[in-house]
Amino acid sequence: MIIDCHGHYTTAPKELDTFRQAQIAALDQGARGAAPGAPKISDDQLRASVEGAQLKLQRERGSDVTIFSPRAAGMAHHVGDAATSAAWTRVCNDLIHRLCTLYPDNFIGVCQLPQSPGVPPTNCIPELERCINQLGFVGCNLNPDPSGGYWKDPPMTDRWWYPFYEKMVELDVPAMVHVSSSCNPNFHATGAHYINGDTTAFMQFLTSDLFKDFPTLKFIIPHGGGAVPYHWGRYRGLAQDLKRPLLKDHLLKNVFFDTCVYHLPGIELLTKVIPVENILFASEMVGAVKGIDPETGCNYDDTKRYIDAVSWLSAADKQKIFEANARRVFSRLDKKLGKRAA
Amino acid sequence: MIIDCHGHYTTAPKELDTFRQAQIAALDQGARGAAPGAPKISDDQLRASVEGAQLKLQRERGSDVTIFSPRAAGMAHHVGDAATSAAWTRVCNDLIHRLCTLYPDNFIGVCQLPQSPGVPPTNCIPELERCINQLGFVGCNLNPDPSGGYWKDPPMTDRWWYPFYEKMVELDVPAMVHVSSSCNPNFHATGAHYINGDTTAFMQFLTSDLFKDFPTLKFIIPHGGGAVPYHWGRYRGLAQDLKRPLLKDHLLKNVFFDTCVYHLPGIELLTKVIPVENILFASEMVGAVKGIDPETGCNYDDTKRYIDAVSWLSAADKQKIFEANARRVFSRLDKKLGKRAA
Repeated sequence: MIIDCHGHYTTAPKELDTFRQAQIAALDQGARGAAPGAPKISDDQLRASVEGAQLKLQRERGSDVTIFSPRAAGMAHHVGDAATSAAWTRVCNDLIHRLCTLYPDNFIGVCQLPQSPGVPPTNCIPELERCINQLGFVGCNLNPDPSGGYWKDPPMTDRWWYPFYEKMVELDVPAMVHVSSSCNPNFHATGAHYINGDTTAFMQFLTSDLFKDFPTLKFIIPHGGGAVPYHWGRYRGLAQDLKRPLLKDHLLKNVFFDTCVYHLPGIELLTKVIPVENILFASEMVGAVKGIDPETGCNYDDTKRYIDAVSWLSAADKQKIFEANARRVFSRLDKKLGKRAA
Repeated sequence: MIIDCHGHYTTAPKELDTFRQAQIAALDQGARGAAPGAPKISDDQLRASVEGAQLKLQRERGSDVTIFSPRAAGMAHHVGDAATSAAWTRVCNDLIHRLCTLYPDNFIGVCQLPQSPGVPPTNCIPELERCINQLGFVGCNLNPDPSGGYWKDPPMTDRWWYPFYEKMVELDVPAMVHVSSSCNPNFHATGAHYINGDTTAFMQFLTSDLFKDFPTLKFIIPHGGGAVPYHWGRYRGLAQDLKRPLLKDHLLKNVFFDTCVYHLPGIELLTKVIPVENILFASEMVGAVKGIDPETGCNYDDTKRYIDAVSWLSAADKQKIFEANARRVFSRLDKKLGKRAA
């Protein structure tokens, strides 16, 4: 079985965007949190939105199930206030739930959270509980910078986040560290802010004792871990200079990297320096990079091809990357996948 | 000849720090810009500060000359105002000049700039002219985020920066894109802010027409280009999605990467995906990572060993990385190095 641990609903019907625009317009008129009615989207519309996109690509590329969440750039936690974010998040998560219900073999949900700049993430606990306990989701996307590129909230290792982590541990769900769009003109979203968010979170973890406080807390750092594997020597050396334990002991029981790296040399590096136990297959399709690489004739984000091509990975290694690691990190997956195990 | 294009004066006598502390104390008392008298540091002190450090490492590791600039984390452009930054910058650059005069065979100067948040970089032109025309420096370090981790100034591709670029072009000097320390608790300086700065600048260049406006402007992106080579497929794909030219045509006549990547797999990736013409040897010693890698028994930042170990680089390739590219990018180097060419 091939589990893609990182897919966003980037192909939602236009009614979702219309809802969001109406919500923002209401904000501009000073009616904060006064969300318009939930968008009316039929099951047929939902089916049409994925049949020619995510489902088609699953079939073509040979993945079985996608861990699926609302569009990351769409979260935009910096827009409005916590009430705005709560209403928007609920609508987005409900759509994911409907898709997962329509296609239980293809999609398993991961939720957006109603984060808001300057608001303690404790406010996200009810939505996390709803999504995990009622909607059957298996994890969440946690934004390390709800301000959208100005980095005004405390680091992810601050006690500011601890009540939320306690709930994650209690529910036994991981978080993917995932920023949203950038409202800072310095940062292109998918080309800079995403990658910087990944790198930043890793270094926050490195300098902290977070995983002493939460030994079972788990994070996936997407986009191949940002810059981290490329600079693995730097991070090993910094940990050493800072008198931290070896990274494998200090972080790698709790921190995992996905394979959203869109060329073979990058995937080769990732699988060379990061233990296979810490790598989860992902493509982020239909996502950040949509085109066909003229150098290979294949889609940039068809990451399975790169993993297939790495000569030093054994069949057992690949089974870990494609399936077993995801089942371990998203520990609720087994129950969801049930008898579908190969 | 082996030219290390990225070294900082991280071993300055304590009098320099004492000066800076006095300057900051004066600020705290409201006397902005009222700098204390220049620090008194003897030539013997200067010699002692590098003999057992940079010079010793040059000899041990086999590099000939280091392109040398003030400590990057020390620039701290976010401290005080433009007058503070001007006084501090002048002191730092003067020390570099004295070292380059004491050791003309070992050090060639690159200057710090008196940037200050919210102040147009036009204010840096006089110091750039002084350093290039009077002190014989060959380039500058340009901070894309003078706010120290809050990214409040316009992107490097904004016209805000254009008068400074005009002067760079006129003087025919490149800039290394180099942030300073971070006053944002989210960003560890050398582990996150530095690398994010590199990645961010590259993506700013990618989305702009800066090099149409300045066809001869040159930037070195340090730390192996941040996350960029690891995600080269992503950047090629984003350029394609954004209808930009191929990266080699769009950016690689103007943008260069150094080799401050502290493990062999990272250097292998760099030399696999980035044309050798765009790679400049550097170690950043004595810099961000000081220890010995237990996996190799050698210093993490002894980057020459990694380049020596890359099997697919020919002798001609290595000569480009170690010498020829630096002479091309720092076009004033030839005159400085004079008859020392191999």
